[in-house]
Amino acid sequence: MAKRTSKLKIIPLGGLYEIGKNITVIEYKGDIIVIDCGLAFPEDEMLGIDVVIPDITYLLKNREKIKGIVLTHGHEDHIGALPYVLKKINVPVYGTKLTLGLVENKIKEHKLKNTKLRVTKPGQKIKLGCFEVEFIRTSHSIPDSVALAINTPVGVVVHTGDFKVDYTPINGEVMDLHRFAELGKKGVLVAMADSTNVERPGYTMSERTVGSTFIDIFKTAKQRIIVATFASNIHRIQQIINAAVMYNRKVVVSGRSMVNVVKVARELGYLDVPDGTLIDINDMNKYALDEIVVITTGSQGEPMSALSRIASSDHKKMELVPGDLVIISATPIPGNEKTVAKVINQLFKKGANVIYETLADVHVSGHACQEELKLMHRLLQPKFFIPVHGEYRHLKQHAQLAEELGMDKENIFVAENGSVIEFTKDEGKFAQNVPAGNILVDGLGIGDVGNIVLRDRKHLSEDGLIIVVVTITKEEGKVVAGPDIISRGFVYVRESEDLMEEAKNVVKEVLDECQKNKITDWATLKSSIRDALRNYLYEKMKRNPMILPIIMEV
Amino acid sequence: MAKRTSKLKIIPLGGLYEIGKNITVIEYKGDIIVIDCGLAFPEDEMLGIDVVIPDITYLLKNREKIKGIVLTHGHEDHIGALPYVLKKINVPVYGTKLTLGLVENKIKEHKLKNTKLRVTKPGQKIKLGCFEVEFIRTSHSIPDSVALAINTPVGVVVHTGDFKVDYTPINGEVMDLHRFAELGKKGVLVAMADSTNVERPGYTMSERTVGSTFIDIFKTAKQRIIVATFASNIHRIQQIINAAVMYNRKVVVSGRSMVNVVKVARELGYLDVPDGTLIDINDMNKYALDEIVVITTGSQGEPMSALSRIASSDHKKMELVPGDLVIISATPIPGNEKTVAKVINQLFKKGANVIYETLADVHVSGHACQEELKLMHRLLQPKFFIPVHGEYRHLKQHAQLAEELGMDKENIFVAENGSVIEFTKDEGKFAQNVPAGNILVDGLGIGDVGNIVLRDRKHLSEDGLIIVVVTITKEEGKVVAGPDIISRGFVYVRESEDLMEEAKNVVKEVLDECQKNKITDWATLKSSIRDALRNYLYEKMKRNPMILPIIMEV
Repeated sequence: MAKRTSKLKIIPLGGLYEIGKNITVIEYKGDIIVIDCGLAFPEDEMLGIDVVIPDITYLLKNREKIKGIVLTHGHEDHIGALPYVLKKINVPVYGTKLTLGLVENKIKEHKLKNTKLRVTKPGQKIKLGCFEVEFIRTSHSIPDSVALAINTPVGVVVHTGDFKVDYTPINGEVMDLHRFAELGKKGVLVAMADSTNVERPGYTMSERTVGSTFIDIFKTAKQRIIVATFASNIHRIQQIINAAVMYNRKVVVSGRSMVNVVKVARELGYLDVPDGTLIDINDMNKYALDEIVVITTGSQGEPMSALSRIASSDHKKMELVPGDLVIISATPIPGNEKTVAKVINQLFKKGANVIYETLADVHVSGHACQEELKLMHRLLQPKFFIPVHGEYRHLKQHAQLAEELGMDKENIFVAENGSVIEFTKDEGKFAQNVPAGNILVDGLGIGDVGNIVLRDRKHLSEDGLIIVVVTITKEEGKVVAGPDIISRGFVYVRESEDLMEEAKNVVKEVLDECQKNKITDWATLKSSIRDALRNYLYEKMKRNPMILPIIMEV
Repeated sequence: MAKRTSKLKIIPLGGLYEIGKNITVIEYKGDIIVIDCGLAFPEDEMLGIDVVIPDITYLLKNREKIKGIVLTHGHEDHIGALPYVLKKINVPVYGTKLTLGLVENKIKEHKLKNTKLRVTKPGQKIKLGCFEVEFIRTSHSIPDSVALAINTPVGVVVHTGDFKVDYTPINGEVMDLHRFAELGKKGVLVAMADSTNVERPGYTMSERTVGSTFIDIFKTAKQRIIVATFASNIHRIQQIINAAVMYNRKVVVSGRSMVNVVKVARELGYLDVPDGTLIDINDMNKYALDEIVVITTGSQGEPMSALSRIASSDHKKMELVPGDLVIISATPIPGNEKTVAKVINQLFKKGANVIYETLADVHVSGHACQEELKLMHRLLQPKFFIPVHGEYRHLKQHAQLAEELGMDKENIFVAENGSVIEFTKDEGKFAQNVPAGNILVDGLGIGDVGNIVLRDRKHLSEDGLIIVVVTITKEEGKVVAGPDIISRGFVYVRESEDLMEEAKNVVKEVLDECQKNKITDWATLKSSIRDALRNYLYEKMKRNPMILPIIMEV
């Protein structure tokens, strides 16, 4: 037993087989640190769900061991579940300045108190139990992103966080390639690396290339320019502002999260905005159309976002003018293709010119492509490798890439959420899984919507429902009121009166039959009604609504 | 008035502002012909809808004028609504042999009788009222596709149908560029052209390039090969069969529509399969894994398709063996990205190697890119132009492309479904719209699901429902049974007993209050219950389920 506890455990509780809710446990004897604490956005089949957070049963069971949560960067899939988790386990949270600035916003929204946020700088090392955690600067689509080198009793673990290799980053702070090289030279036991773009050959272009495109576009724009992008992509926002300043345009910021992030980023010194450049949206009308650039949310076609409101003439403070130029500086996240296309169509219909990724280089990814991943693998030359941050196909292909670079297949661990991988200095192997999974958040309810509820929602969404109510006497089961039939999401009631009348007759027949046979128990009555009505409707319409018989007794 | 009726009318009833349900009316005096008669697949918000067909009110009103329906090719978005339309208007249908072969299948499924299908050859001309319709061979992702040149009393109208320019088509039958050139030289009044790929610069590659990829892949495959593609892409299927024959593999066909199409295509001579190549799926086990190629449906990740069943070990006759190679020879249609990704992940998990578009050139489009469109415009040099077959952004950009080629802006008509564009020899202009729109098909119901039903389905799908039933006496409105509360799609009832109990108390209080104030009218009772419960639940859970109060009287 003593031997067993002296192994290092790496336990991904989220982020594998999915892009989202990244959270990884690093454990040695009595010490645990947690890397990231993200949320995921609901899958199509999770009807009505707001967000998805990781199941942290394992952390709750081992709460006294947890020395802290360490964040790699400020994206939702890395920090979004923090408020939920901190409510249950209030441990110190370590991250860079901007990352914690964004966390602080969330904490305020959730009205959490007494949280312990500890700002850490790239290059800094912190001691957490038996672990020493070093923050290493990387490049990503949000500033202040870091990788982590974790010095453990059995060796060094490197987690890349989300990264790309940008040799010409906007803020001039190049990722710390030297440190990755040093670590690799000294010896890395385990590497965990971002798998998002492993399917893409070559290199991800520098963020700077987008800036060149902006300048080209701004140069010839004759009217207002509206740029939609991710609020967290502060380098992108900086480049929009730079191009605006270059062509003497004022900048308006629109959309709640855009306003928030710009505020935080300016306060913390991550955005360089010359005085007088930003103007209030209410003052926009004081300027000519060709003196304005609007930076807005809504690049994913989110129905409630500022851009969608502009497109559907539903924005309170801004109306599109034919000839305005809209730039969608983003790629649709898988699943959002149609909503984005819808907004583009609406904008065109309103007479705007719209530029999007299909038409010009107005976006680059924040994740490393194959050649960048190979660089990272070569620099770190780890003994063991765990691909992270990806669907199964990404993890699998990242494992293949590592193999092609010469790693032993046995040293590569394609894990799942809840996997426990145990390491000694010389050996790594899978141990028994721990609980992991999705906790669905719907309104204030956390985890109270599960498979049965979702199955019902799906059924209701596709076929609607029919309610049959009947009041019977307690003693003899004689019908004294009803049957009444109410439907929702099924057919236009007005145009289907005959159908509903016939359905009522079907129920009446069932009730008569039951009365005749002296059947009064509810279960039999209900299932008889349900069966008869289901058969009738399927025969008649090839549809299968949810049928809810309700019996009242007087 | 006489003057007015001597204009040619072009009326798109479907296919504009959308990719789907293509149908266009050509009318002159007492004669109408209809080009194509397609269906669309439901948008995300059309919950529970099976397919969408065009509103043909205009055709029903003018039924005696209709001389026939002319089909350009056999894709669902061009022929899928035929059975529904023929049920109401049984006119002759003209199309090429394969197109009508596929139509015949549909007609059988819908048990239609006495239809009049008239096979027409590329190059052939048919007389329909005052119109002469000429079929012109094109290239597309289904064989036997044609464009139409319609000789009308005011001039020649050319409808390209869906097309690409493939100089090396699989069956050797190159599109009739000469005829387009001749028509252009003689003078084309109006051109309507496919806008699907107008955003893409350059050329669509020849279908033949996919065949080369197949050969490369088949050459080194060591185990079973499974290729998923569109059933209607018979040239693709031919190339899979060719590669199979080249490497001495037997071919198994899987999936209902794939089996159907292969059968029709072989019978009509569109597929060349050497004797002994096709084997029954039940005989697959008689061969070694490296002697087999499976051609299957499911390239869009459709949950009930053969490939999805294989991926989820749910296929009755076939089980994936680790090491099998799966090729997804298709691009996800917008909206299907996530379902396709899901199937790919499942296949990888089962140990298959999966090749898809991101990884190799296993698919080409069937639609013309910008340079091909320019060729068509230059050949036809029409006086007037109507971009068709596209969302608004495609139509708009196709119009821009025509302008860049030198057309007058006033001669280009970006129309919508229901637009009426009237032409004389010299002039074209928009007239008043006619009815057009979506008819939703749900089971056997055609058009009985509309906005209210869909709105209810959406509400139910996101928040579920709560039913409150109470039985009261007729005279005094005294509660004699209930209130009972039933919920579906809302919360786990077992874990939320307290909540449901509290909700019941909220309703009881409302009822007591009403009783006290002698309020007995149902409308007030119901709205009081609904309001109180809605406020309670929103306060408590930030959720907003559908609330259905039902009152029974005894």
